[in-house]
Amino acid sequence: MSGYRYEYVTFLSDYGLSDEFVGVCHGVMLSIAPELKIIDITHGIQAQNIREGAMILAQSVRFMPKAVHLAIIDPSVGSLRKSLVIETGDGSALVGPDNGLLAMAAMKLGGATACREIANADLMITPPSKTFHGRDIFAPAAAHLAKGVPIAEFGPEVPVASLVAEAIPQPRLHDDHYHAQVLHIDRFGNVQLNVTKEEMTAIGLPPKSLLEVRIEGHRKMVMYGETFSAVADGELVVTEDSYGLLAVAVNKGRAAEAFGAQIGSSAIIGAPGSGAAD
Amino acid sequence: MSGYRYEYVTFLSDYGLSDEFVGVCHGVMLSIAPELKIIDITHGIQAQNIREGAMILAQSVRFMPKAVHLAIIDPSVGSLRKSLVIETGDGSALVGPDNGLLAMAAMKLGGATACREIANADLMITPPSKTFHGRDIFAPAAAHLAKGVPIAEFGPEVPVASLVAEAIPQPRLHDDHYHAQVLHIDRFGNVQLNVTKEEMTAIGLPPKSLLEVRIEGHRKMVMYGETFSAVADGELVVTEDSYGLLAVAVNKGRAAEAFGAQIGSSAIIGAPGSGAAD
Amino acid sequence: MSGYRYEYVTFLSDYGLSDEFVGVCHGVMLSIAPELKIIDITHGIQAQNIREGAMILAQSVRFMPKAVHLAIIDPSVGSLRKSLVIETGDGSALVGPDNGLLAMAAMKLGGATACREIANADLMITPPSKTFHGRDIFAPAAAHLAKGVPIAEFGPEVPVASLVAEAIPQPRLHDDHYHAQVLHIDRFGNVQLNVTKEEMTAIGLPPKSLLEVRIEGHRKMVMYGETFSAVADGELVVTEDSYGLLAVAVNKGRAAEAFGAQIGSSAIIGAPGSGAAD
Repeated sequence: MSGYRYEYVTFLSDYGLSDEFVGVCHGVMLSIAPELKIIDITHGIQAQNIREGAMILAQSVRFMPKAVHLAIIDPSVGSLRKSLVIETGDGSALVGPDNGLLAMAAMKLGGATACREIANADLMITPPSKTFHGRDIFAPAAAHLAKGVPIAEFGPEVPVASLVAEAIPQPRLHDDHYHAQVLHIDRFGNVQLNVTKEEMTAIGLPPKSLLEVRIEGHRKMVMYGETFSAVADGELVVTEDSYGLLAVAVNKGRAAEAFGAQIGSSAIIGAPGSGAAD
Repeated sequence: MSGYRYEYVTFLSDYGLSDEFVGVCHGVMLSIAPELKIIDITHGIQAQNIREGAMILAQSVRFMPKAVHLAIIDPSVGSLRKSLVIETGDGSALVGPDNGLLAMAAMKLGGATACREIANADLMITPPSKTFHGRDIFAPAAAHLAKGVPIAEFGPEVPVASLVAEAIPQPRLHDDHYHAQVLHIDRFGNVQLNVTKEEMTAIGLPPKSLLEVRIEGHRKMVMYGETFSAVADGELVVTEDSYGLLAVAVNKGRAAEAFGAQIGSSAIIGAPGSGAAD
Repeated sequence: MSGYRYEYVTFLSDYGLSDEFVGVCHGVMLSIAPELKIIDITHGIQAQNIREGAMILAQSVRFMPKAVHLAIIDPSVGSLRKSLVIETGDGSALVGPDNGLLAMAAMKLGGATACREIANADLMITPPSKTFHGRDIFAPAAAHLAKGVPIAEFGPEVPVASLVAEAIPQPRLHDDHYHAQVLHIDRFGNVQLNVTKEEMTAIGLPPKSLLEVRIEGHRKMVMYGETFSAVADGELVVTEDSYGLLAVAVNKGRAAEAFGAQIGSSAIIGAPGSGAAD
């Protein structure tokens, strides 16, 4: 045990692992707080996709130990968007840009209880570069916060109510089907939609129903199973994924290619024959 | 030192690093066992390729400190395949699905001495999802085992002899050449075959011989050297790789593209002119 | 605190993360020095690109805690190139092949003060393979060095002046523009050139100037801004990057594709209309 206020920093970004960006941020944090432990949630968020990062962060924090959650997807680095440290109701903290990346996770962590702008140059690498605030501002802030620097020392108060939020798009009900959206496609080609099991049950389509799924001009009948193996190998199946959202999959295969689906694609999911209504 | 029974968990999967799957499993383990140290062997196994994962795991464990080896390649997640914890003769442990992924590594670790099915809900995230047993069943089991929970508490005994095994395909000798298979292609385009130096020597082809190599319709004469630099830059060379298997390489180049080789491709390797015999 | 001479090993390579190479090196180091902490700078250096690795390493070490810096890009593995341990003026150390990868970083760390060839078989995995010195020679050396083995025990002295160096190509001034080169392209498609802000100011082109940029047959007028957001979304911009070099970027987009730029591409950057002079 380090005696730090936070033993852990978790770290999510769109930096990828082909460059040294993540490694340098680790180096900066460990130079400040040598006993810190860092958990890389992922650095594979689609470049500059704030919404995808916000969702993955919000879905992931409940599986983490108590931590400072450092998140950096920052297409407007160097502009006027604020750099923030946030404390939350459950005793966690968040560090990152005020562009919608953090607010959803803050809600999952008990809500933002205090927020400050990072303005104290003593807690940065100075002068900070214009293009790599992760290294010069955010990573140092996360490490100092973990080590015990009080949030008030980082800079001026920011009203919690003013935090920029990123909304998950909501599906739109139309008769017997939802107009939905592809939120995420994972390594296995599973296509996550913004529709829950409860929403499907509400229109009379519980698990074991046959569904019609339309994405990118493809229209397919798909079994709504409880697991991938509810269908034969190579067959399409809709399942509830591990975050409680419906996902279109292929048992031992890839659904994204079957539909030409991409993050952000429109999707229609509902009763067989529902397409005739549109 | 943590005082845990195992200081380390090693972790191999086909999860990739573009999603948050690996990071979430780390978070789950460290929430249970905060002092645990995790070594990521690789998460780049070809999606759902149990045989590739089994081989890489079996080749890697001897370079690891004493550990719980967590391995997850699980195309049948949610089906009836068992979830296992295994103890081995050298004091290590394995955690993962009973689908052939673990048995070869168990043999390298002194053989399985005890095996239990993971069935105790107190040692899981409940209710476990149908699609992400890594997070909900395997990662928690690895962390609890590392922390010292006796294997008997995980669930009913599984006969060691019943473990599902994955066999490495063996080469077939035909006169002066072997009918072999491409086991692996690495980042550098080196093409690993299921043939050893001893097997080549047995047919009168020791290092420094000239070999004929046939893969995917290409037939090339290749020097069998001791190092890549036995040939000029850009030239093909066969060497013994770091696991004792023959690999086709290009000195400072890529052999996979020269042959159009893929994991699982058939390969014929033997004396020059041997092709005439087929 | 471990009581080791070095708490940290940093690790940079071209091994990628799709194979087990990096994980196995971690395992080897932690088997020797169980309390060691490892910081992965990056393993995404272009395969066998010594110059790119040398530059990224040299740029990164100042953000790391005091450490043994392990770096492996080794296209001539198994040939006569030496394996080295180096001590530097600021109390750091370097381990890797003597092929130009280490010298630039040594200069950033206070200069090489002592250098030995790694020849002591007691500090290796023996017999070392011909193709994976990272596992068998370099990773063990880094771990033993971190644990406190004196450098003199590794092998014969190597004159510091004899270290192989890799030079960063220098831009060539021609009237009102530089003939330069693309050093690096990062995940965001930003194109780093071997030209500094000072060099541009010296020819009367400070920030806020309009520049002409020519790469791979494309000729474009580009604003020289202080941040990406100096131009509208989707517009080209030249900025000083976080290492003090000029980079061509697209605000919230990718510059590499706009120019068809690759690592090593020739580039011309200077005053508008300068192209007429060539």
